[in-house]
Amino acid sequence: MAEKTKELVESWSFLDTVESNFRPLVVIELAKGTKEETIEWFTKRIMDKKANGGAQLLIKPLVTENGVENIYLVGASHLRLLLGAETVGLVKECSDNSMRTFTYSSRKTFKDFADDNHNFLTMAECQYIIKHELENLRAKDEKMIPGYPQAKLYPGKSIVRRLLTSGILVQIFPLHDREELKKLRHSWYGRVKVGYQPLDDIRCYFGETIALYFGFLEYFTFALIPMAVIGIPYYVFAWEDYDKYVMFATFNLLWSTVILEVWKRICAILTYRWGTLLMKRQFEEPRPGFHGVLGINPVTGREEPVYSSIKRQLRIYLVSLPFVCLCLYFSLYVMMIYFDLEQWALDYHKENESNFSSLMLYVPSIIYAVVIEVMNRIYRYAAEFLTSWENHRLESSYQNHLILKVLVFNFLNCFASLFYIAFVLFDMKLLRQSLATLLITSQILNQFAESLLPYWLQKRYNRRMKKRMCSQKTDMDLSLADQVNMEKEMGTYLGTFDDYLELFLQFGYVSLFSCVYPLAAVFAVLNNITEIYSDALKMCRVYKRPFAEPTANIGVWQLAFETMSVISVVTNCILIGMSPQVDALFPDSKMDLVLTVALVEHLLLAIKFIMAFVIPDKPRDIQMKLARLEFESLEALKQQVRAFQMQLHFPLIHHSSFHTLEYLLLQH
Amino acid sequence: MAEKTKELVESWSFLDTVESNFRPLVVIELAKGTKEETIEWFTKRIMDKKANGGAQLLIKPLVTENGVENIYLVGASHLRLLLGAETVGLVKECSDNSMRTFTYSSRKTFKDFADDNHNFLTMAECQYIIKHELENLRAKDEKMIPGYPQAKLYPGKSIVRRLLTSGILVQIFPLHDREELKKLRHSWYGRVKVGYQPLDDIRCYFGETIALYFGFLEYFTFALIPMAVIGIPYYVFAWEDYDKYVMFATFNLLWSTVILEVWKRICAILTYRWGTLLMKRQFEEPRPGFHGVLGINPVTGREEPVYSSIKRQLRIYLVSLPFVCLCLYFSLYVMMIYFDLEQWALDYHKENESNFSSLMLYVPSIIYAVVIEVMNRIYRYAAEFLTSWENHRLESSYQNHLILKVLVFNFLNCFASLFYIAFVLFDMKLLRQSLATLLITSQILNQFAESLLPYWLQKRYNRRMKKRMCSQKTDMDLSLADQVNMEKEMGTYLGTFDDYLELFLQFGYVSLFSCVYPLAAVFAVLNNITEIYSDALKMCRVYKRPFAEPTANIGVWQLAFETMSVISVVTNCILIGMSPQVDALFPDSKMDLVLTVALVEHLLLAIKFIMAFVIPDKPRDIQMKLARLEFESLEALKQQVRAFQMQLHFPLIHHSSFHTLEYLLLQH
Repeated sequence: MAEKTKELVESWSFLDTVESNFRPLVVIELAKGTKEETIEWFTKRIMDKKANGGAQLLIKPLVTENGVENIYLVGASHLRLLLGAETVGLVKECSDNSMRTFTYSSRKTFKDFADDNHNFLTMAECQYIIKHELENLRAKDEKMIPGYPQAKLYPGKSIVRRLLTSGILVQIFPLHDREELKKLRHSWYGRVKVGYQPLDDIRCYFGETIALYFGFLEYFTFALIPMAVIGIPYYVFAWEDYDKYVMFATFNLLWSTVILEVWKRICAILTYRWGTLLMKRQFEEPRPGFHGVLGINPVTGREEPVYSSIKRQLRIYLVSLPFVCLCLYFSLYVMMIYFDLEQWALDYHKENESNFSSLMLYVPSIIYAVVIEVMNRIYRYAAEFLTSWENHRLESSYQNHLILKVLVFNFLNCFASLFYIAFVLFDMKLLRQSLATLLITSQILNQFAESLLPYWLQKRYNRRMKKRMCSQKTDMDLSLADQVNMEKEMGTYLGTFDDYLELFLQFGYVSLFSCVYPLAAVFAVLNNITEIYSDALKMCRVYKRPFAEPTANIGVWQLAFETMSVISVVTNCILIGMSPQVDALFPDSKMDLVLTVALVEHLLLAIKFIMAFVIPDKPRDIQMKLARLEFESLEALKQQVRAFQMQLHFPLIHHSSFHTLEYLLLQH
Repeated sequence: MAEKTKELVESWSFLDTVESNFRPLVVIELAKGTKEETIEWFTKRIMDKKANGGAQLLIKPLVTENGVENIYLVGASHLRLLLGAETVGLVKECSDNSMRTFTYSSRKTFKDFADDNHNFLTMAECQYIIKHELENLRAKDEKMIPGYPQAKLYPGKSIVRRLLTSGILVQIFPLHDREELKKLRHSWYGRVKVGYQPLDDIRCYFGETIALYFGFLEYFTFALIPMAVIGIPYYVFAWEDYDKYVMFATFNLLWSTVILEVWKRICAILTYRWGTLLMKRQFEEPRPGFHGVLGINPVTGREEPVYSSIKRQLRIYLVSLPFVCLCLYFSLYVMMIYFDLEQWALDYHKENESNFSSLMLYVPSIIYAVVIEVMNRIYRYAAEFLTSWENHRLESSYQNHLILKVLVFNFLNCFASLFYIAFVLFDMKLLRQSLATLLITSQILNQFAESLLPYWLQKRYNRRMKKRMCSQKTDMDLSLADQVNMEKEMGTYLGTFDDYLELFLQFGYVSLFSCVYPLAAVFAVLNNITEIYSDALKMCRVYKRPFAEPTANIGVWQLAFETMSVISVVTNCILIGMSPQVDALFPDSKMDLVLTVALVEHLLLAIKFIMAFVIPDKPRDIQMKLARLEFESLEALKQQVRAFQMQLHFPLIHHSSFHTLEYLLLQH
């Protein structure tokens, strides 16, 4: 085993002396006992020239005290990264402050560009480029991965994805930059201060998707503050007048529409500044888990696995849909058990009234809140399994089906009991109590399960690791090998899904029954402030660094939040209509009451849609900048056509007598 | 005067002998008494080479018996048209049946292309190209139009637009192709047959916008047939059972959602076949009527008139909006007068019951229908004036504001009385009668005012013209000069706005109160069948040939129709809830009735939105074809980048020692 690897190590250590600025960016961990020929072939493919179908990257085995451990560091030369930036379509700021797609030929026009400025691309961008290049390293004429006949390849198949699915490649992850991370931690949550998050720094370090989540979280928290401020006097002065509730609910509804529309604008400002608003969508490759029999893909014309769309539809409608319905039924069943418990607690309280029994009143709600969280998490696994089994070809389609499944279930699971209390039992007191218990319990559970528990586990593990290493070494600065070994054991951040879902449910608690429990916004604000810190902690301390993912918006979540705000118009109108104060306004006829409520509801919905239509999605200056870019690209195209026409005309004069005559006449 | 023109004529008649296939495509009519120097300059600019900023087209004065009449014919060489097709981004069918953007260099790959096949581009396409080239003929360093110091020019200003706004240019219109038109007329409405319209031929002759209107009209007619068929037994058997009405209304609502969704798919199929689905949007120039002080346009960086957006907003919100509100108020006032008249007629009928008095019952409705039509038309002029005064920079923005103004007023004007009868008077009998009278009267008026009257006028004029010409000549085949003279006097077709508006209002009559008057769909179908014929007649016989306009969809009308179908869900649910049969179902509590109706309404709306979301906007095969094109263009881009990278590497080896070393190492 050792011979070939040794050779490689030696040749690389030679490179190390020449290429003194090899900067390790990405770590590749291969399975223990991976065959020599596989490693040799894989590293050769990574280093091979682009022209030969390689990735033309630099790769270097990690040497620790225990020898070579099948861990490799990947880097790239500065020039290679610049060319890669052009391939992935990176958008950077020019010297004249406009954002443009980076091309190598126009590199001099970009801000801060210099041939020797290796910080022109951020580390996260470099890592994204390397990930892209590795994933686009494709099989040529190999039929299988050398040494593993069962790991089939076909021309055009991504090698890294096959290595991952066949278990030879354990993981690929980007390295943390300890210096940068320290600075970021300090400015993000290191000091006690009131102020905005350093979103641009977060974006530089973690990429746009994560920065946008934190941007949304911050924006959403600020947006909730007016609701919270208005909500406080309702609690303090125990306002119960219907007119104040109507005012609160109306303000709430219009406000929730406005904040969602304004978010689109802020999102456009952020992603314009980060360049992702202008980034062209790349052609989507099949997701790693996609399988099927080899066939001709009608779109690309390439031979690759195809899977019948009808089969997938059958799986969706005959298996997934019934399963989701069953889960929804089960969730409702659990809800009914909760109401039995609630009744039992109430009876118990009535029979033997004591401090203990009045405390017991809260127990069913708390138990139910815990059960809801547990069910949500179990269902999440089932939904992931099912959606993966549906065998979607594209990651985006997989994500959409997963999000839809999870949203529907979580919505019903969290809010069904509240709807039941409000519109079947008509018990406003119980509604308020349940709402408060559910909201607060779920927030505490989430914070604990999401950030504090992993943080504690990670900290314990780190302490153990450090102790072990300190026993061997004296200097506190970790070597590269130690850093890699430590980071590869850290948990993997699975994306912003859970974080958005949490915010979505919170938005539901705040808006659906806002007029019954105006204090909900206050708790939401408090939770979100700690959420920012605990999520930041999670990103910086608990998880491996995630790869940066460019994104231009929060995607399907915008739609989810908007749907929630439409539903909340309906629920709030009904709640107000049911309140005894409003009831008292129409002493003669319940009919008039209901008709008035329905009318108001329709008016509010109409106003909502008109507002969403009238408020432009992008601020005027961004619109102008986009128009300017579009204009320039059209002008450039025209110039090209014109240049082409010029080229064309002169040869024609020599070749075609008919055209010659015509042009001579036109010139005259 | 005659000298210079004569020279031009002579040089052109010389060209005539050489360029034997000069095909007149577009007619330019200059004002009588236009100065010589202007004509000379204008024709020179049109003929000048592209490289000199000209349009490089062919132009020829029209010579009639009365000498030169300031009418010019414009044509272009075959090559020029092909290059123009590339400039406007025409999409044509390739030999492998895929649709691709035409480029001159790839011309050989296109279906039916041959260097001597002058029918590769349809005449409408050629005319569209010439129009585009003429409109893009821009001032270079001219400060004004020669001979007209008041007609200012600045670099980049479209010359033709300035000539039009200063009245020197009377009109530009494309010539009819009498042969083709005859064929089209025959296959369109010349023979009595049941079948589809020749949409592809219409598109070839009139362009995509008009063909798409006729496609929509035909589709809409077919889509109404099921409603009409179901509606007939309600009339015949006088069904008044609530359950049948509920069934009809529910079917109607779901059906109206389905037909609007399916139309999007059919529209995609049509426009894919016609190539406009793939056509890139051109950068929009300011509309001809736009004025302002010279300034720097922030988007283009060019000096051109700019107009403050705040001023425009002030005009919209301080003048237009109050004016529209005033008109709406006036319309409601007229409606109240109508109800007084109605009451008066009823009283009269009660006092002296006779055949005459029972006929008198219909008179107010008919008068009101006529008044509505008249008010709609007057308001239309006011709206056009106001929107033009708002001084929108882009034609699209002008159109959107105009359509919004007109739609709101027409909707209220046509349907306010019906809403009043239904939801204030609760008089279902009167509602049915009013609906029938309004629908039928407006249909008759429209057909008359839109097609038959202009046709009759045109026919009379043609007969007079022919008589005059026949007295001078014997051959019946009109010469080119006669044809031009005849066509230039024809009316100008002002676009599909009125036609769509008519369909929109008809859709309102059919769907808003469908459960009260199921027969409406029958009348709509009958009207639409004759509408197809009268509109076809109008296009072929009454109006000048319009310029073809590429379009990919019916634009804002899709939204308008969808909004109408949402409103109709609400009205139908209320109507059903108000019917005595449904009333009888809830004898104990009106509350339950209203709540049930509200619940059903919300359910229907939810189903509507889910259906709109679930039904894909484009059929699967079109989606695949689009994905294939996107994939190809991304691949081509990658190839370019790759080729560029190759080019780049070799020089680098010679120039930079650092990079040389690196590449040598990587090769090794």
